[in-house]
Amino acid sequence: MNALRPSSVVLVGSSSMVEEIGMTAPSFFRGVEANLRAFRGDIAVVDIDAPVEPAGDMAVIALPPGLSLEWAERCASAGARAIVQLTGGFTAEQRAAYRRLVDRFGFRLVGPNSIMGYIDTSIGLNTAFNEGITPLPGPVSFIVQSGGVGAAVLDTAISEGVGISRFAFVGDKVDVDDEDLLRAYAEDPGTRAIGMYVEGVRDGRSFVETASEVSDLKPVVALKGGMSREGARRASSHTASVAGSDDIFEIAFREAGILRVPSIQSLIHTTFALALQPPLYGKRLAVVSNVGGPAILAADAVVRAGLRMASIGSDTAETVHGTYPGVELINPVDMIADADGERYRDVLEAVLSDGNVDGAIVINQMKSCFFREDDVTGIIESLSKTDKPVVDVVPGGRDFQLLRRRFIEAGVPVYTDPSHAVEAMDALHRYSLVRRGEYV
Amino acid sequence: MNALRPSSVVLVGSSSMVEEIGMTAPSFFRGVEANLRAFRGDIAVVDIDAPVEPAGDMAVIALPPGLSLEWAERCASAGARAIVQLTGGFTAEQRAAYRRLVDRFGFRLVGPNSIMGYIDTSIGLNTAFNEGITPLPGPVSFIVQSGGVGAAVLDTAISEGVGISRFAFVGDKVDVDDEDLLRAYAEDPGTRAIGMYVEGVRDGRSFVETASEVSDLKPVVALKGGMSREGARRASSHTASVAGSDDIFEIAFREAGILRVPSIQSLIHTTFALALQPPLYGKRLAVVSNVGGPAILAADAVVRAGLRMASIGSDTAETVHGTYPGVELINPVDMIADADGERYRDVLEAVLSDGNVDGAIVINQMKSCFFREDDVTGIIESLSKTDKPVVDVVPGGRDFQLLRRRFIEAGVPVYTDPSHAVEAMDALHRYSLVRRGEYV
Repeated sequence: MNALRPSSVVLVGSSSMVEEIGMTAPSFFRGVEANLRAFRGDIAVVDIDAPVEPAGDMAVIALPPGLSLEWAERCASAGARAIVQLTGGFTAEQRAAYRRLVDRFGFRLVGPNSIMGYIDTSIGLNTAFNEGITPLPGPVSFIVQSGGVGAAVLDTAISEGVGISRFAFVGDKVDVDDEDLLRAYAEDPGTRAIGMYVEGVRDGRSFVETASEVSDLKPVVALKGGMSREGARRASSHTASVAGSDDIFEIAFREAGILRVPSIQSLIHTTFALALQPPLYGKRLAVVSNVGGPAILAADAVVRAGLRMASIGSDTAETVHGTYPGVELINPVDMIADADGERYRDVLEAVLSDGNVDGAIVINQMKSCFFREDDVTGIIESLSKTDKPVVDVVPGGRDFQLLRRRFIEAGVPVYTDPSHAVEAMDALHRYSLVRRGEYV
Repeated sequence: MNALRPSSVVLVGSSSMVEEIGMTAPSFFRGVEANLRAFRGDIAVVDIDAPVEPAGDMAVIALPPGLSLEWAERCASAGARAIVQLTGGFTAEQRAAYRRLVDRFGFRLVGPNSIMGYIDTSIGLNTAFNEGITPLPGPVSFIVQSGGVGAAVLDTAISEGVGISRFAFVGDKVDVDDEDLLRAYAEDPGTRAIGMYVEGVRDGRSFVETASEVSDLKPVVALKGGMSREGARRASSHTASVAGSDDIFEIAFREAGILRVPSIQSLIHTTFALALQPPLYGKRLAVVSNVGGPAILAADAVVRAGLRMASIGSDTAETVHGTYPGVELINPVDMIADADGERYRDVLEAVLSDGNVDGAIVINQMKSCFFREDDVTGIIESLSKTDKPVVDVVPGGRDFQLLRRRFIEAGVPVYTDPSHAVEAMDALHRYSLVRRGEYV
């Protein structure tokens, strides 16, 4: 969808107008203007209180419904190939009128009610209106139906160092919808995994077909909102979508090879893992840890998730014992509290080259142990020789913050809680089934 | 257990000795010494490389097993009423020898293998060896069997602003065990909820009896390690405990009124909620939000947890519509994106005084909305008139960090993810059943 990669953008809004429900407000307008400054192309700003000709490949509109329709037509006449309609509050009739404009002029429309709009970090495009909402460039792309969930995902991604390629807030989906974006993300070389927040889709059959094709190429993870009757009722007024029955979505997602998750946190955690690590072919995991309790909890979570604790081969044990007689090669592997980077590297290399092991969860705790920041290097070095998936756990809040960046830069997903690492491994395993056509 | 509230502490260690498995090391010794400086009482340090008489109500020992036993006897002879044995690596025989010392001298022993030892924030006592491990004083106390899990809980509590009263690392439990500490915490006026990490208990029957008595007074939450065969095997070598079968623990925990949780994150989240908020009597929850998607996800999670979305009364709707005609009183309640503190206060007061509502989940998103830091005041004001439980969600990573402290200071548990708020409410509900004798 080249329309979403403009070389010029025009923002259309008002420095005086306020409309509560649809969110038109001077602060909103000024906020978008500030975030657009990073765009690597031409930017024009039209304040309708003192109107000028709205020229731009892409028009971003933040006005009440009636005025938005007028200005959309003006922008389209002036050559816009895409319109991002941020503000909402459109009636069914107004949405239909917007659709007629799309059909007449042939531009692509994101929204209305897309609120935060569209982000493409490769060209510095960001139509969000809040301050401090610029994500790092990176391998994950999102499609979200709700401004609120999207903003939460984005803010969390920024604070957890999860890099973003593209981020679309689809809102009422009068034109551009999940299928369009799935196809666009499939072709984006910067996107390695796709996360979605879905309330409803227009055409279930067609969505499943498109998603099936995309999920063969790249992992697709989805959080479904409106599973309960109460949530579904709210969704119908929220983004003008009919939230389908939960059972139907469950079956459709499986058919489409989409990995379903239960929460915003899971959506971010698993999508990022899938973007960084290869699928887990097989179920046999090793847990390699410098600490007992968290390793025990990881083993418990592995079994609970239906994965398996690998039986480490006697050859591997012999190799390791040659250098480290104190390290027990019973899985979970106890590296002892004074394990340094070198010991991690040697033991991990041995464990990851063991034919009985399909992937590894590494736990390197700092407090209650002697693990230091630089010991991360040893863990990272061990990964250069393997194509099996590895995820890391740094138990504890501040220690995780301290080491997070180094793991992420090396392409290793990192979590604070052993259960989150297992959830990521489970997603990597489910995606291996998708790739093999066995996810049913 | 007055022995654990000393007026003087003596630390016994070595500035030269290294023993890998049990963790004796000069850096360990020096670390404990540094953390003990905050103790509000007399402190003595005995370096056994240049020994002096070890005088103190409480002795903290960080030496290899044989030497520890010698010095424990010396400390006891010199009047110690409590010994915290940090280092581990004791054989069964050595543990039995330690037990004989306990019986002969009558001191209370924490450990061996307690690693991080014991914390009592009310007297500034902290025997942990890592830097930066000082928690805020507060209403939660923990009993943990594993140095690693305990350190992770502590580090997370510090980074999330969860205040601690007491924190015991029980290790091999040769003397002081879960039951002793449950009783001590039950009597501690500073403790309002108790969190446990348990691998195994010595006497199941007795543990259930003690826990039942304590859980009638204060909420007790437990994370059980060693649920799987693989985890259990590892636990047996980890803290010299026999991890019981998972089914037996499940039944025992229910009988004891202990709320079981599946992860470290859940342990911290739910224990803190139980410390700050009253039980949820009833299942009918209101979700009050300035944003659609996260409210929909909260409603979904409420239903999935077996709780219910309240039907808000028409009287309440009329009251609110008098002032805020745009606010929909269908649950989840849509406050609209421009909701400020005043609107939150008025709507929440109306919703919380509704006889159909047993508790409320408040969602105040910043990004994609117009909620500002000072608007927190309105939410907090609304709580002064209710005795129903309320938990808050600030979706997103950095925004949560920005508002966290203000909620916690006002006694409101706060989470980043709607599903975590629902998990907390579920624990508050389960505890109401414990209090009513209906938790079976």
